[in-house]
Amino acid sequence: MTTFRWMTAGESHGPELTALVDGLPAGLPLLAEHVDEHLARRQQGYGRGGRMKIETDRARLVGGVRGGETLGGPVTLVVPNKDYANWQGRMGPEPFAESPEAVTRPRPGHADLAGGQKYDRHDLRDILERASARETTMRVAVGAVARRLLDELGISVFAHVVRIGPVAVKPFVGSLDELAARARASDLACADEEASESMKAAIKEASHAGDTLGGHFEVIARGLPPGLGSHVQWDRKLDGRLAQAVMSIQAIKAVAIGDGFDAGSLRGSQVHDAITHVPATNVFPRTTNHAGGLEGGLTNGEPLVVRASMKPIATLRKALPSVDIRTKEVFEAAHERSDICAVAAASVIGEAMVAIVLADAVLEKFGGDSLRELRRNVDGYKEQLRNY
Amino acid sequence: MTTFRWMTAGESHGPELTALVDGLPAGLPLLAEHVDEHLARRQQGYGRGGRMKIETDRARLVGGVRGGETLGGPVTLVVPNKDYANWQGRMGPEPFAESPEAVTRPRPGHADLAGGQKYDRHDLRDILERASARETTMRVAVGAVARRLLDELGISVFAHVVRIGPVAVKPFVGSLDELAARARASDLACADEEASESMKAAIKEASHAGDTLGGHFEVIARGLPPGLGSHVQWDRKLDGRLAQAVMSIQAIKAVAIGDGFDAGSLRGSQVHDAITHVPATNVFPRTTNHAGGLEGGLTNGEPLVVRASMKPIATLRKALPSVDIRTKEVFEAAHERSDICAVAAASVIGEAMVAIVLADAVLEKFGGDSLRELRRNVDGYKEQLRNY
Amino acid sequence: MTTFRWMTAGESHGPELTALVDGLPAGLPLLAEHVDEHLARRQQGYGRGGRMKIETDRARLVGGVRGGETLGGPVTLVVPNKDYANWQGRMGPEPFAESPEAVTRPRPGHADLAGGQKYDRHDLRDILERASARETTMRVAVGAVARRLLDELGISVFAHVVRIGPVAVKPFVGSLDELAARARASDLACADEEASESMKAAIKEASHAGDTLGGHFEVIARGLPPGLGSHVQWDRKLDGRLAQAVMSIQAIKAVAIGDGFDAGSLRGSQVHDAITHVPATNVFPRTTNHAGGLEGGLTNGEPLVVRASMKPIATLRKALPSVDIRTKEVFEAAHERSDICAVAAASVIGEAMVAIVLADAVLEKFGGDSLRELRRNVDGYKEQLRNY
Amino acid sequence: MTTFRWMTAGESHGPELTALVDGLPAGLPLLAEHVDEHLARRQQGYGRGGRMKIETDRARLVGGVRGGETLGGPVTLVVPNKDYANWQGRMGPEPFAESPEAVTRPRPGHADLAGGQKYDRHDLRDILERASARETTMRVAVGAVARRLLDELGISVFAHVVRIGPVAVKPFVGSLDELAARARASDLACADEEASESMKAAIKEASHAGDTLGGHFEVIARGLPPGLGSHVQWDRKLDGRLAQAVMSIQAIKAVAIGDGFDAGSLRGSQVHDAITHVPATNVFPRTTNHAGGLEGGLTNGEPLVVRASMKPIATLRKALPSVDIRTKEVFEAAHERSDICAVAAASVIGEAMVAIVLADAVLEKFGGDSLRELRRNVDGYKEQLRNY
Repeated sequence: MTTFRWMTAGESHGPELTALVDGLPAGLPLLAEHVDEHLARRQQGYGRGGRMKIETDRARLVGGVRGGETLGGPVTLVVPNKDYANWQGRMGPEPFAESPEAVTRPRPGHADLAGGQKYDRHDLRDILERASARETTMRVAVGAVARRLLDELGISVFAHVVRIGPVAVKPFVGSLDELAARARASDLACADEEASESMKAAIKEASHAGDTLGGHFEVIARGLPPGLGSHVQWDRKLDGRLAQAVMSIQAIKAVAIGDGFDAGSLRGSQVHDAITHVPATNVFPRTTNHAGGLEGGLTNGEPLVVRASMKPIATLRKALPSVDIRTKEVFEAAHERSDICAVAAASVIGEAMVAIVLADAVLEKFGGDSLRELRRNVDGYKEQLRNY
Repeated sequence: MTTFRWMTAGESHGPELTALVDGLPAGLPLLAEHVDEHLARRQQGYGRGGRMKIETDRARLVGGVRGGETLGGPVTLVVPNKDYANWQGRMGPEPFAESPEAVTRPRPGHADLAGGQKYDRHDLRDILERASARETTMRVAVGAVARRLLDELGISVFAHVVRIGPVAVKPFVGSLDELAARARASDLACADEEASESMKAAIKEASHAGDTLGGHFEVIARGLPPGLGSHVQWDRKLDGRLAQAVMSIQAIKAVAIGDGFDAGSLRGSQVHDAITHVPATNVFPRTTNHAGGLEGGLTNGEPLVVRASMKPIATLRKALPSVDIRTKEVFEAAHERSDICAVAAASVIGEAMVAIVLADAVLEKFGGDSLRELRRNVDGYKEQLRNY
Repeated sequence: MTTFRWMTAGESHGPELTALVDGLPAGLPLLAEHVDEHLARRQQGYGRGGRMKIETDRARLVGGVRGGETLGGPVTLVVPNKDYANWQGRMGPEPFAESPEAVTRPRPGHADLAGGQKYDRHDLRDILERASARETTMRVAVGAVARRLLDELGISVFAHVVRIGPVAVKPFVGSLDELAARARASDLACADEEASESMKAAIKEASHAGDTLGGHFEVIARGLPPGLGSHVQWDRKLDGRLAQAVMSIQAIKAVAIGDGFDAGSLRGSQVHDAITHVPATNVFPRTTNHAGGLEGGLTNGEPLVVRASMKPIATLRKALPSVDIRTKEVFEAAHERSDICAVAAASVIGEAMVAIVLADAVLEKFGGDSLRELRRNVDGYKEQLRNY
Repeated sequence: MTTFRWMTAGESHGPELTALVDGLPAGLPLLAEHVDEHLARRQQGYGRGGRMKIETDRARLVGGVRGGETLGGPVTLVVPNKDYANWQGRMGPEPFAESPEAVTRPRPGHADLAGGQKYDRHDLRDILERASARETTMRVAVGAVARRLLDELGISVFAHVVRIGPVAVKPFVGSLDELAARARASDLACADEEASESMKAAIKEASHAGDTLGGHFEVIARGLPPGLGSHVQWDRKLDGRLAQAVMSIQAIKAVAIGDGFDAGSLRGSQVHDAITHVPATNVFPRTTNHAGGLEGGLTNGEPLVVRASMKPIATLRKALPSVDIRTKEVFEAAHERSDICAVAAASVIGEAMVAIVLADAVLEKFGGDSLRELRRNVDGYKEQLRNY
């Protein structure tokens, strides 16, 4: 039986977005504010276009939560699409009195064409409404629930942007707490102030050119006990599960753990982390963290470090050649209004996906139907580790 | 109901390795030779140590295949460990008359320590035997079965090495057929002869230094129809599923699709692939393939391109500091004999994992309990695309 | 990858009930009316208490459906709880200003006590709100979607009541069409008019005695091709999947296929169905249907026949001894108002669960991302059978 | 992530039967003898035919077990088919030099015909070899592993036969220990000696008539804590999971929990079990166990009682009309040699399936990667219950 599972639903301009989360323990404090905080973070950030101002997302908890606590049953999260009133005639579930104008011009870099072919749809709106990054709203909502669970166990997750287009940050000197605080304070989720200025300049420049920018972000999780995930079966390995979760985010094209792609360029003596020992706690810290907190598909007690690369937004003012699916004529795909750069938002989504995978791994290892039981099981394991 | 599923089992020095593959259609021609061919490829390659010569793996098909064809039921693949006779006293399933000497010295970069902590094992052999890259033998075996299925549908998968340590290949000029052929002919699975020479020099140098090297490989799949995978749910996205499959391979630290990490450095107008149209076939080729064959989590008909980074082998002659789990004393982990570089082998495993994910995606989309039915369903879809 | 999956959520007196259905093909005509029709059938029936009149359920399609057709993405179904306004102070998700009075008296025959122990809840409302048969509203809603899919393929499902308490129907003489029509026309979903009168008398009698009644119902599916489900793995067998689906309905205590429990009393020559052949169609009809349409875990082309036994409703006026979980004092559990008999409603839920399992089995066998593709694949298989 | 999963593979006359079991904790004592004991029980019993004497099954543990203990990785169980040497020419995996004679005559009551149609096989041996009850050997083997886990937690499972054809047992008077002991001692797995004699007479009579008999068995599990399974989602309900597991056994046509089908005939005041309380232990025993140990899909601490009905064996000497799939001619299916009655064996398989479901439910609720951790988590929960 699968312990933890979740699905999202809803179209970008449909009535609402919905998520179900099944397998949470009972007794977890959970408020709409916990979710809204992260929904707001997803919507902010330098370089975003107009829609982010239209929609200020607010979550409703309509199942599985009573009096501020989970009940052990499935949690239902709903985020209404405030703009739906204007779209009902084109996006409502009822048959249309009059067919709305079909979208027949697939945008390069989107699911439009391949989705239309797969699902045999000739109005590409049927595809793009669900493929839209609007769907990530519910990933962030589910991630906020996962974070609540992790918080109770002393596990925290944050992200920061390390590259926007041509501009990369300098290696951060300071504690992870400082890194997290600076990233939170930045409207680019970037802890390097100098780089942030250059990033903003690059975004402005791209904007003037009618172009868009991508970038890289890094998600870091702390407080993880060693032994989450497993080496015993391909699909239990935590590195694989993290990679799936993060790569499945819209526009992400690469995922790395620890040294990632650099690991392929170095020698063995440079990339493996020496094991040390603290007698007082019986903890085995590593002197370095090239592995990014994962060895053999298992957490090793060091901070988990996952990086991702986001391609530039595919909806841009600059024309991209494409072909109308009805007329088969070539056209130039170009868009009036768009975000220029959404890497800061993507980093919030990355955080959410990492939190979800970790919550799943925690529940898989520790079981527990109430927060109290989960906590007791975790504590028992920590005690066991102290005597290992 | 899950369509396609598989598991592997067995320890590195146990009696045998086993894999079960459930969900294949009936009537698929399948011989042990089909599997052995790829098992042999996994074992060869410049830079490998001694064990590869001890074990020349041969698969036995002991379930689900009769008279050279699958029956529709689960297929059982077995690869005996030839060396087991020498290990029975230490690795047999029966209680030991006398306890074998315990492994108490965890190697940095391996699952040894975190696995011992998780599973509460104090002889780390209990962990390392399963965490070993020996397990990938069965991934390659299952991959060979998946390839047979794909072959029948005109889908092919190959891999080539693009970097060993500091040496990267030059961009290949030529057809994908040529690239595949050259990679097959190379004992480093590398299509760039000049780079191969430098790679070998680098491997030799690392060997002299008691060190090891990693690298990058690329897996390419051709003949895929548009519309495998889906944009509709996070865990249906093919990019995520590929990332999990490849990242779950031992020693892989990064996975990229198409432009991958470079995508984060470029502008939107540089990374999206213009859509064109061929009236005769109603196919919509892209002028470039920055997306690596995937848009919105769906195949788009272009070649699928997945890259991975393998860290250097973690078992090296050069000492790495670690701590004995029993005595808690520091020691220097060093090993007499080891592979220096296994990127060519890893590329074969990467091929296998990509083939498995694609076979799963094909069966999910097309259903079909016999090869004939599967083929008919695929043909029907291709006809539908011609009229889209 | 799992093809078809669904979850429900929501509490009996919470804001709404929700269901997500993931894995439907695109292009399936689907209206709220299709769902409402079956929601209404679930709420009617002789012997029901007061609440059924308070709530006349109406479904809203808030995701995955546009202009009357599915889009291939997840479908969201919502049924608001009309009474929520009166319960918000006790059932809302926000922390309560003042704790509502806790339910501390577990009812025998309900999840109350075991659920409270498992989830460590001391207000049993936290359990009973989700364990309630109200949850089956969403099973019926999901079942209505599954029925739409089956309808398009010429597969129909109906149920009829065959026993209420001591009163059993006589074997029906007539066609399955007649049986279905009579059951639909009856307010007990019972095709035997004479028995229906006795059933109503028994219900009245039980009501006067402050007691409740259960019964048996039968679900019949027609139009199924041979070959749904499979014999190859324990969890692919369709009989097992049907048994899980039906047994998981609240208050169901037994499930049978074909001759069911009687099969254990008879001889082999009495229970197996002779195979015949119709040359014109190459169909192999059975002369009898003791097997209930399933052999070896596969449909065999005969009508599928599933029976279930529902225990009497556990909330009754007549006192049942229990123990208060706070005071540990014995009390007599007795209830003012309740349904007396809900077997007719349960038969609608049974229909829904059977329809869901069949839709899953169809999608698993035939794949298909659009209704057109699914239909083409089914037709191809039927043609194959004609030439078998 | 799914915690516990398992698959079986292999054909009745193929080289071997195989099972993989993934998700067991490390440190569980497990020997081949533990498995062999139950394999032998499956093969014995009054009324069995010749093959049971040919094959005395012995399990080999070829993965996941070292020195008598599980390692936390997948466990591989192998049972060789001793008769394979005689079948290699007809059942080997290699292409046949000469095609073996095809089976073209489907037996009523078997998967032969529907399986042939589904998988497009024209030699029905391709179907019957996997559909055979021989497959249940591995269910018993996996069940033996599950029982080992349950044993360590004080949970025991046994079965007894309650009906053979027309002969039913009298209600047992005595403790469950006595019931279990008597059933173990009986060659019909039946605790009622008088009924056993009549059963044997009925079997002899059926044998003389060239016929076969089915029957009913009951599986009882003790030592279960309240709170296994869950009411929160349809597929988490333990009653449904048990029903699937038991109904999926070859020849099983009905499954019941507690009062089962009788529950439909009785009144509410007769079928619900009063709740009492033992202050010393804070346990809440029920005065009766009509519910069979499950309320709302959860264990309630009472013994779990599952009944099943097995149809008579479908391979009998008495002729059953059928149709040759090649010639389309009618023939009389009759068989020389067969078991007459296999209900005792089926009861062993039923035990195994119930044990597997319970082990899964235990691992889902308690997590735990080592037996020590699992036990600690269970103990913590029991302590929690004492203070509930």
